[in-house]
Amino acid sequence: MFVVMEKDAGETMIEVVMAALTRHGFDVHRSTGSDQTVLGVVGDIASADIREFEVLDGVQEVVRVSEPFKLSSRSFKRESTVIDVNGCRIGGKDVVVMAGPCAIENEKQLFETARSVARAGAKVLRGGAYKPRTSPYAFQGLGVEGLKLLRAAGREFGMATVSEVMDISQIETALEYVDIIQIGARNMQNFNLLSAVGQVRKPVLLKRGMAATIQEWLLAAEYVMSGGNYQVILCERGIRTFETYTRYTLDISAIPIIQKLSHLPIIADPSHATGRRDKVMPLARACVAAGADGLLIEVHVDPDMALCDGPQSLYPDQFAQLMDDLRLIVPAVQRGLP
Amino acid sequence: MFVVMEKDAGETMIEVVMAALTRHGFDVHRSTGSDQTVLGVVGDIASADIREFEVLDGVQEVVRVSEPFKLSSRSFKRESTVIDVNGCRIGGKDVVVMAGPCAIENEKQLFETARSVARAGAKVLRGGAYKPRTSPYAFQGLGVEGLKLLRAAGREFGMATVSEVMDISQIETALEYVDIIQIGARNMQNFNLLSAVGQVRKPVLLKRGMAATIQEWLLAAEYVMSGGNYQVILCERGIRTFETYTRYTLDISAIPIIQKLSHLPIIADPSHATGRRDKVMPLARACVAAGADGLLIEVHVDPDMALCDGPQSLYPDQFAQLMDDLRLIVPAVQRGLP
Amino acid sequence: MFVVMEKDAGETMIEVVMAALTRHGFDVHRSTGSDQTVLGVVGDIASADIREFEVLDGVQEVVRVSEPFKLSSRSFKRESTVIDVNGCRIGGKDVVVMAGPCAIENEKQLFETARSVARAGAKVLRGGAYKPRTSPYAFQGLGVEGLKLLRAAGREFGMATVSEVMDISQIETALEYVDIIQIGARNMQNFNLLSAVGQVRKPVLLKRGMAATIQEWLLAAEYVMSGGNYQVILCERGIRTFETYTRYTLDISAIPIIQKLSHLPIIADPSHATGRRDKVMPLARACVAAGADGLLIEVHVDPDMALCDGPQSLYPDQFAQLMDDLRLIVPAVQRGLP
Amino acid sequence: MFVVMEKDAGETMIEVVMAALTRHGFDVHRSTGSDQTVLGVVGDIASADIREFEVLDGVQEVVRVSEPFKLSSRSFKRESTVIDVNGCRIGGKDVVVMAGPCAIENEKQLFETARSVARAGAKVLRGGAYKPRTSPYAFQGLGVEGLKLLRAAGREFGMATVSEVMDISQIETALEYVDIIQIGARNMQNFNLLSAVGQVRKPVLLKRGMAATIQEWLLAAEYVMSGGNYQVILCERGIRTFETYTRYTLDISAIPIIQKLSHLPIIADPSHATGRRDKVMPLARACVAAGADGLLIEVHVDPDMALCDGPQSLYPDQFAQLMDDLRLIVPAVQRGLP
Repeated sequence: MFVVMEKDAGETMIEVVMAALTRHGFDVHRSTGSDQTVLGVVGDIASADIREFEVLDGVQEVVRVSEPFKLSSRSFKRESTVIDVNGCRIGGKDVVVMAGPCAIENEKQLFETARSVARAGAKVLRGGAYKPRTSPYAFQGLGVEGLKLLRAAGREFGMATVSEVMDISQIETALEYVDIIQIGARNMQNFNLLSAVGQVRKPVLLKRGMAATIQEWLLAAEYVMSGGNYQVILCERGIRTFETYTRYTLDISAIPIIQKLSHLPIIADPSHATGRRDKVMPLARACVAAGADGLLIEVHVDPDMALCDGPQSLYPDQFAQLMDDLRLIVPAVQRGLP
Repeated sequence: MFVVMEKDAGETMIEVVMAALTRHGFDVHRSTGSDQTVLGVVGDIASADIREFEVLDGVQEVVRVSEPFKLSSRSFKRESTVIDVNGCRIGGKDVVVMAGPCAIENEKQLFETARSVARAGAKVLRGGAYKPRTSPYAFQGLGVEGLKLLRAAGREFGMATVSEVMDISQIETALEYVDIIQIGARNMQNFNLLSAVGQVRKPVLLKRGMAATIQEWLLAAEYVMSGGNYQVILCERGIRTFETYTRYTLDISAIPIIQKLSHLPIIADPSHATGRRDKVMPLARACVAAGADGLLIEVHVDPDMALCDGPQSLYPDQFAQLMDDLRLIVPAVQRGLP
Repeated sequence: MFVVMEKDAGETMIEVVMAALTRHGFDVHRSTGSDQTVLGVVGDIASADIREFEVLDGVQEVVRVSEPFKLSSRSFKRESTVIDVNGCRIGGKDVVVMAGPCAIENEKQLFETARSVARAGAKVLRGGAYKPRTSPYAFQGLGVEGLKLLRAAGREFGMATVSEVMDISQIETALEYVDIIQIGARNMQNFNLLSAVGQVRKPVLLKRGMAATIQEWLLAAEYVMSGGNYQVILCERGIRTFETYTRYTLDISAIPIIQKLSHLPIIADPSHATGRRDKVMPLARACVAAGADGLLIEVHVDPDMALCDGPQSLYPDQFAQLMDDLRLIVPAVQRGLP
Repeated sequence: MFVVMEKDAGETMIEVVMAALTRHGFDVHRSTGSDQTVLGVVGDIASADIREFEVLDGVQEVVRVSEPFKLSSRSFKRESTVIDVNGCRIGGKDVVVMAGPCAIENEKQLFETARSVARAGAKVLRGGAYKPRTSPYAFQGLGVEGLKLLRAAGREFGMATVSEVMDISQIETALEYVDIIQIGARNMQNFNLLSAVGQVRKPVLLKRGMAATIQEWLLAAEYVMSGGNYQVILCERGIRTFETYTRYTLDISAIPIIQKLSHLPIIADPSHATGRRDKVMPLARACVAAGADGLLIEVHVDPDMALCDGPQSLYPDQFAQLMDDLRLIVPAVQRGLP
């Protein structure tokens, strides 16, 4: 960390700042130029609040050099993490496609959807049992009955399963039925929930919050990992911007950025990012072309009748077409797709 | 709700859309112009997902006329809601100032801070016992011990108390010690937590999420109110924008907007919005001049030693100065300040 | 357009609103429901300011049904526009790649870069002669000498040319030397400049402003087209959001959105969107996979010595590699790449 | 400037970076820690593109310590700049209110509006003669005839005048008739226009671009000042964010931030920021309470008949009320209002 003093900062101001740094347990190295004094600071900076020094008199700027996340950082672990879920390797050579309905509605809907996505090449079955809904008057999900159906459908069609938990109280039940625990965008900074899944020993799919910077997202992963659960899959799902033609703006740059900053696998969810079926296919292709390790796609056997997010769900034949398109693209990123 | 068909939408398309609307239980009135067909739709639109109709062939646009929130809406209840907390009336004639440290650290820190803010005119004592921290390596709060100190300090200096809960499991304890339950910005769409405080019969201070639209914020209030708890205080605390000189951008327009759309009281938190002490005072004055029903301000008896958010905490004498400034401003908005 | 009255709007209010609409030359059709009155409004709504009616007493909401842009709209012209520049068809079957240095620096730099991008398959040569620089202390471009070099290099290597004009006074000169006139993001709402290039009869490449909605962007195209110049190429180059890891956030969804709303060709500029070389390649692949009609890419024969935007310029061999990658991707979007 | 090397950067990488810095004319001081190497860099950094070094191998981060703006910076000039326009001192003790119609429509409209705002205490008369309109189909202003009316009305009622120029060709004419030249938000990065008004010797009112950071805004001021025109008045008018209830989000924090970073006066335009009359009054009060040096307010003698932005124009009696409210507020910020 560097503390840059203002050009006209007097000796007393500099000494006050150095004392404050020392009091926080840092080592300070003073460098006095012709123009300006700069203090180099060494120590456990990750947990410091740099504004504490910024507000001191005579301080022009404080610059944190090291990143505040550790376990998720590529400088901590050089090799990319590959997460093995029942033999499906997320972050490995093959692009992994996770697909299924937004909400699990009944056995017929889930099994028919699952059959179609499995046949097209999806390796993980998604389906919501606990649904975060913006309005309290909307369908809230089937709960544990949904999870039972999900496990049954996953087994029937040879797919791993992923489903969201919204509250600590749901984790134990979810662990019985799903292979990957999903944390939704609205809970990305629900720190109690993050800590709780950090105690779990199953992979966690962590969606980016709609207003989360990449740094905050990696710090959320850090909450999970600092509990000992290193199996975190990051999922870009769109950020909120001034443009409202799509629900959110898919931040496609996040894919190569995460791959540079972190060793964790990064997938993308074009369904929630766009909110509209006709935009899902072009963006799904784009994410794979940008190098994503996988996709999370909503598919419904009959989207017009869906109880949740029907407008952004693909028809089964659109999904099959998308998978064919992706098979053409993967060689351009040195990946495979079964 | 209106469904506007495209100019060249054929008769079949129009019939398919009308059938879909009817299937959802809506009444449909068709209006065929020389140029374009428009369908007027009546029924329980608040819980509908309008995109379901937008994605149908031939549909140009779907327009939701009525607002999706009900109980929080001013068209539902014309008179402004006044929330009485131990005789302090939030949303009434007087501007109510809530002040105190970001985190409760120990008895001395809390009591000294409480004494100073009470003397300056604060009516509610704030203090965090459970702290949401972006980094897992930062101070996480004193928990129930902090709440006990908070109640004691509130009683000592004749102030009501407000403190944040981050998880359902903390509600019961908090109810014993605090007068107003705070839901933080990061939990504004933690729907399970919102539903849980909807069961409570104490006022809830609901902060706006950093990426929440005003509509989503009122829908979050709706979650609480639909459980039967009508005592919701809204709190603007800054939204995330491209500008990074301040932590967040205080959306000061939200104050008059909320007052038009909703009958609930609206206060503002300039401390979290700006993140810096030297910006808190001008913005606090601005919020009152814009008509806010109250303020939430961080004050610390010794900010340089604060364990949390010291840089945005006012010194006690700055807070007293601010209160004097506010007393000059309140007549311009036909309010008082004791 | 619809004017939705509030539930308790009285008869007088309704009549005032109807009178105001009539005064503006609109036809008004009143629809009185059990609950609420809605006024249907017909006439030249594109040029109306709907807020004029929104602020009237008793009005809940005004909804503009028709889009305010006309000539650029796909409902105005169904078939996609193909722009032929010296035999290179932008918006046609083949993806068109435009490449070259950010700024033209000297003959050697431009010709060597041009040779390498031509060999790799670029069809249009880009190069800036007038540079918009955020700081007045940075290199401002070679002016007309640069344009002469650009034309010479284009001829030498059989490429069309594109270059930016920043002011009306530069148009006449630019027309002598370049095949496509570029309007930069910072000038997207410089309406005098837009009107002036509307008088020209050469194609205009119109970059999206960094804070422009898609509707404003199409209205900017409308300025050009309403002058009689229908040859507009739209270029997505990133929007400003809260995320600062990249310079801008490439709004990849804009590609399919524009293709639905407008008949104009849409290309993308991943170089300016990301600002960093290592992010340009993945995003360029993504844009083509999303269906873009072309790309605008900065390439420099020696980026480390570039006078402008070197960090986002590809090395010639990276560009050749990118073109090879794109050749693998184009079949997935039913396109070609020579 | 500091260049922070990655932890595992080798000696060769460090030497390459040092050579690149030296080649750019910088002095480099190497500091090798136990953990990491950091290079301190001295020289003319304001005009450097720091990304040139960020993309070099082994570089973790480059930190620009000094601000890239000079003449507008408070570290360049400590005392606040006061701009005297015919005896009206902008940036001085009194808050200066500029008011008048959005567009000048005719003599009667302008003179009646001018009379009312003068009587209420406005010191500067605003009125648009050249109007930047998002749609080419909207009213574009009266041009020079409007400016003549503006000068006449200013003289009649003893007010200075301000009006916008949109193109270099309009400057000469505007100088004859107006006292303050306004540069609109959409032209904040029209660098040719900025340079041109830098040659003028009349004050320039520079609006913030809707997506401009505070740094970019001060750099735009720098363009004007580097031409020798030091009389720049900054004007906050709202930035674009995800919230769409108001046209723009007034960034009220910009007021104290600018006052810290720069010596230039800062005023605010709540009319354009909100776009709605009923939000203008609370936000105008808020801006003054936050410490603004002045306000720019749209007033129209008959807003319902206005040709431009009527919905955001105050009625004369609302404006008079606002001025009375402001007179109550100014003592809280140690200012006056005549």
